[in-house]
Amino acid sequence: MYQIRTDLALETQEKMQEEHVDLKGVRYVEEKIDKNLTISTVTIETENGAKTMGKPRGTYITIEALDMDTADEDYHREISVQLAKVLQRLVPEKRKDMSVLVVGLGNREVTPDALGPRVVDNLFITRHILKEYGKYAFGSENVNPVSSIVPGVMAQTGMESLEIIHGIVKETKPELVIAVDALAARNTRRLNRTIQVTDTGINPGSGVGNHRHGLNEKSLGIPVISIGIPTVVDAATIVKDMLHNLLDAMSQSEMLKSLGNSMEELDDSEKYELIRELLSPNLNTMFVTPKDIDESVKRLSFTVSEGINIAFADIPFEQYTA
Amino acid sequence: MYQIRTDLALETQEKMQEEHVDLKGVRYVEEKIDKNLTISTVTIETENGAKTMGKPRGTYITIEALDMDTADEDYHREISVQLAKVLQRLVPEKRKDMSVLVVGLGNREVTPDALGPRVVDNLFITRHILKEYGKYAFGSENVNPVSSIVPGVMAQTGMESLEIIHGIVKETKPELVIAVDALAARNTRRLNRTIQVTDTGINPGSGVGNHRHGLNEKSLGIPVISIGIPTVVDAATIVKDMLHNLLDAMSQSEMLKSLGNSMEELDDSEKYELIRELLSPNLNTMFVTPKDIDESVKRLSFTVSEGINIAFADIPFEQYTA
Amino acid sequence: MYQIRTDLALETQEKMQEEHVDLKGVRYVEEKIDKNLTISTVTIETENGAKTMGKPRGTYITIEALDMDTADEDYHREISVQLAKVLQRLVPEKRKDMSVLVVGLGNREVTPDALGPRVVDNLFITRHILKEYGKYAFGSENVNPVSSIVPGVMAQTGMESLEIIHGIVKETKPELVIAVDALAARNTRRLNRTIQVTDTGINPGSGVGNHRHGLNEKSLGIPVISIGIPTVVDAATIVKDMLHNLLDAMSQSEMLKSLGNSMEELDDSEKYELIRELLSPNLNTMFVTPKDIDESVKRLSFTVSEGINIAFADIPFEQYTA
Amino acid sequence: MYQIRTDLALETQEKMQEEHVDLKGVRYVEEKIDKNLTISTVTIETENGAKTMGKPRGTYITIEALDMDTADEDYHREISVQLAKVLQRLVPEKRKDMSVLVVGLGNREVTPDALGPRVVDNLFITRHILKEYGKYAFGSENVNPVSSIVPGVMAQTGMESLEIIHGIVKETKPELVIAVDALAARNTRRLNRTIQVTDTGINPGSGVGNHRHGLNEKSLGIPVISIGIPTVVDAATIVKDMLHNLLDAMSQSEMLKSLGNSMEELDDSEKYELIRELLSPNLNTMFVTPKDIDESVKRLSFTVSEGINIAFADIPFEQYTA
Repeated sequence: MYQIRTDLALETQEKMQEEHVDLKGVRYVEEKIDKNLTISTVTIETENGAKTMGKPRGTYITIEALDMDTADEDYHREISVQLAKVLQRLVPEKRKDMSVLVVGLGNREVTPDALGPRVVDNLFITRHILKEYGKYAFGSENVNPVSSIVPGVMAQTGMESLEIIHGIVKETKPELVIAVDALAARNTRRLNRTIQVTDTGINPGSGVGNHRHGLNEKSLGIPVISIGIPTVVDAATIVKDMLHNLLDAMSQSEMLKSLGNSMEELDDSEKYELIRELLSPNLNTMFVTPKDIDESVKRLSFTVSEGINIAFADIPFEQYTA
Repeated sequence: MYQIRTDLALETQEKMQEEHVDLKGVRYVEEKIDKNLTISTVTIETENGAKTMGKPRGTYITIEALDMDTADEDYHREISVQLAKVLQRLVPEKRKDMSVLVVGLGNREVTPDALGPRVVDNLFITRHILKEYGKYAFGSENVNPVSSIVPGVMAQTGMESLEIIHGIVKETKPELVIAVDALAARNTRRLNRTIQVTDTGINPGSGVGNHRHGLNEKSLGIPVISIGIPTVVDAATIVKDMLHNLLDAMSQSEMLKSLGNSMEELDDSEKYELIRELLSPNLNTMFVTPKDIDESVKRLSFTVSEGINIAFADIPFEQYTA
Repeated sequence: MYQIRTDLALETQEKMQEEHVDLKGVRYVEEKIDKNLTISTVTIETENGAKTMGKPRGTYITIEALDMDTADEDYHREISVQLAKVLQRLVPEKRKDMSVLVVGLGNREVTPDALGPRVVDNLFITRHILKEYGKYAFGSENVNPVSSIVPGVMAQTGMESLEIIHGIVKETKPELVIAVDALAARNTRRLNRTIQVTDTGINPGSGVGNHRHGLNEKSLGIPVISIGIPTVVDAATIVKDMLHNLLDAMSQSEMLKSLGNSMEELDDSEKYELIRELLSPNLNTMFVTPKDIDESVKRLSFTVSEGINIAFADIPFEQYTA
Repeated sequence: MYQIRTDLALETQEKMQEEHVDLKGVRYVEEKIDKNLTISTVTIETENGAKTMGKPRGTYITIEALDMDTADEDYHREISVQLAKVLQRLVPEKRKDMSVLVVGLGNREVTPDALGPRVVDNLFITRHILKEYGKYAFGSENVNPVSSIVPGVMAQTGMESLEIIHGIVKETKPELVIAVDALAARNTRRLNRTIQVTDTGINPGSGVGNHRHGLNEKSLGIPVISIGIPTVVDAATIVKDMLHNLLDAMSQSEMLKSLGNSMEELDDSEKYELIRELLSPNLNTMFVTPKDIDESVKRLSFTVSEGINIAFADIPFEQYTA
């Protein structure tokens, strides 16, 4: 009946389940690590599955960590370790000298969209050191050349992120791009508690700022792994979901039954008109986010950057001098 | 039937009008400056009026400037000039040597709540210069001693803003406090286009972060003028308003008539239960804001600070050396 | 005898004059705009001149504005206008539809090195709007497509600025690069009062962070105009200059005469050894900057960005909606 | 002969030793924790000692950690632990429910002066939680009420830090103030490698911004412990030290001997005149700092805040929800 906006494959899959949509070509596996931590994998295997899900073929791994948004002395290193493992599952080949460009997408000046830039702030950047001092610079051969860029958003640069990244990729020839971005979820309960890691890159319409062009293997010519955390819900989604709840409430509450009955008599086009009337056009350019989003983004950026550091720079840190 | 959240007296007044509530003790005057600029004054004159409006007695002046949120080479100096005039109307006595403490309320780390701190960043601060070099420091006797503070929010300081400001007021003895804060509106159309100036200070429950204690003449012992711009709408308000729209749509659309009829049969407590079921508890700690709020807050902070500068430091700027 | 560090061609020229070095191949013109504003042009016309000056052939225009570092209501728009005129003198051809990429060099996190990034923050960026809405988007045909990038420094990105800019230039094909950077002067009196504009780009060893690779027409394939303001003096320069002053003082003061005589008996290698002993090696990685550099950089970034805005986006700003 | 500027009692003590000044009333103890970590304590016991040292009576503990300025995965937690122990030595009485106000002095906008504000950003603030939920809020009785404030500098606020802090202390009645500030050292080798902790508070003339009024038990009425890290050297100090080195070099180098002899013939007033001639007046408002000071201040602020967190909020962090 209506499209809701979510960047999380897991939420799309759940909704499809709920609505008894046939999910042929989509596999789902769930692994419970402990009481707070679940890792689920949605694999979209066929073009048909991709069409049903509204997302490209590939692997979508979701780390759900109930306590990720709580303060923690070492920024939930246990979650960082899981993220590092997930990243290593998705890296196309296991060579440890693969060079990696980490891209911090989003707008540093808008708190819930600043996740990508802030993750980059906390990375161990090694490419220039390896280039100058060679592979023994860190007393370990297991340090990948890591570079990073914060491209900014189009209102700031006048350029698409894709243009900037494509230019840099052709010039510096990394073998892998990791794109970090803040996402939009459907459900406020998922905010700041979920990390989605995919091998499909960033796709048009996703992210807080709704990217217009994809950042993926097709557009960049090299594999792109994306890491995203939902920090906002689209304002329009809140209202659409509320209507959904209204219909549900009507069908269940005795008191509202007669009202529900009337509602059910509406056909789809009538329901669509109802929604259109309800939605202010302004809402499409707005988002919903928690009031303490600053603390969440600060903490989460450490958790994610540490995961990337563990995966690509497993170095005895004492020997590292910035 | 239900309380909606707005910090704007103008919105409360409009809603009362709409619902034909008797507004005895409340005066309303509107002045159209030009096609883009309207100044309206709501004066709550009696305790009864205060009770009806849900806001303390006093004067609420609203500058509505349709183009305030558009880019402009001199940051809409024409609006700053109007703000300066409005400020001078509310200053209790006209002495030019009155010392002023400007308080930038809100959380600098959360973009739509950063208005207050960013206004303070752009102020001409003069108190320390006047104290050291005397009244001829600026080649004008019309420069007020201006000091400022950004107290931060409770999660950062562990203290109420009121505690911090009260301590500083007792120590430095300003004669007037100007408190600048980001507000919550009811209607997304008002965001970033409205400045509310009042002589009632900041009151409990207002602002993006919902202050718990008031900053007003009663709590501080000196007059408090507040300047606010709505930059968010409460997430709960969006949903409540949507329901309101739904009921309206039902009563007007032929198609939805039978549904509307059922709805009308609900009594007030049934309607309340309906809303309660619709509202996720999470929504109370969330806000709705535009995606380009960073650019708006940056621009608006210049417009407001320039208004304060004009009102209290009308100096030949060339002679001013920071 | 010893090399001092300055990014200002004007200071090199002055020193050469002072030491009676033959400056064949170098032309110098000075124009006094008013009592506070002087524009001087050093043109290095031959390879020989370039060798003597230690700087590449080209035009170096210096705007000296004695009051540029004082507070001003419109951020010294009169200086911005002069900067716009100087920029237009150096633009290779006068086509108004020439597309321009502005590069904000330097480290946003180090106050005196943040000039470039902060200039970019205040630019009117038009490329994406012109691309989407065409040449009438601004009600003027005199708006150039302007894009911008803040590449960050190598410790943050692992990449040379040149690699990033080269990639972006090849991808987005601007016709002109304007590189903005904070510079090192020799003399503390020039700090924050001087704008150098050249058509030679940025060259190795220049800037606060000492660029390792040039950003110029040779390396980028398109003309590069650089805009620089000195915000620091190298710590080593301070000490070297002091020694210079010491020798001068000795030769002039009667009291110090006998000391000066001894000094003159030293030959060049002895003098060099003396300096080497005096200089702590740490000093080479340090800079000297004023304590209120934050206010200067904030103000200067507005003055420079306004100059670029005037030169490339002479638009009726009211019609511009970001 | 000449006063050099240092905020470190250790450096003053060393210079006195070097110059064979009698240090009666000053005790010095040094403890080597490991090859990278030395803790030394200078205790000024008498008014005479205070006069000789140019610093008030009290205890000055210096943690010298050679690798403190290198990157480290957990921000040198071993140094944070030592800092916590030192803090506990200086706390006047050992009650665990003592309420603490942490003051982040300095200018957030000037990188080497931002240490204090950035330490406060990373503190666990508990006062408001304890006030609302009582002493069992953290599952431990060993959590002190901690509040914090970043007062800003006089150019931003128009007020002395002392006025702001005094007002807040009288209003919120903490029992202990911890003042964190960036310091000026004499020797560039000490920068970012030394933490000084004292029970004498902050005194006039100290800090990067040269405080005009002290923050100490006398001015605030409660004990003040200060934590400082040198991040700058005064520009004038660099030059003065260079002259000192020059004289040393002269007396030792055979080659420079005759020159040195002439120098020794100068009497004190002649030497003073020599220095005055060498020093540009500008230098007094300037500082010297390393080019990568941004990375140092970022890292050090974590090391210091963690030390304060360990000392005053020894909580099982998992249970802490911001």
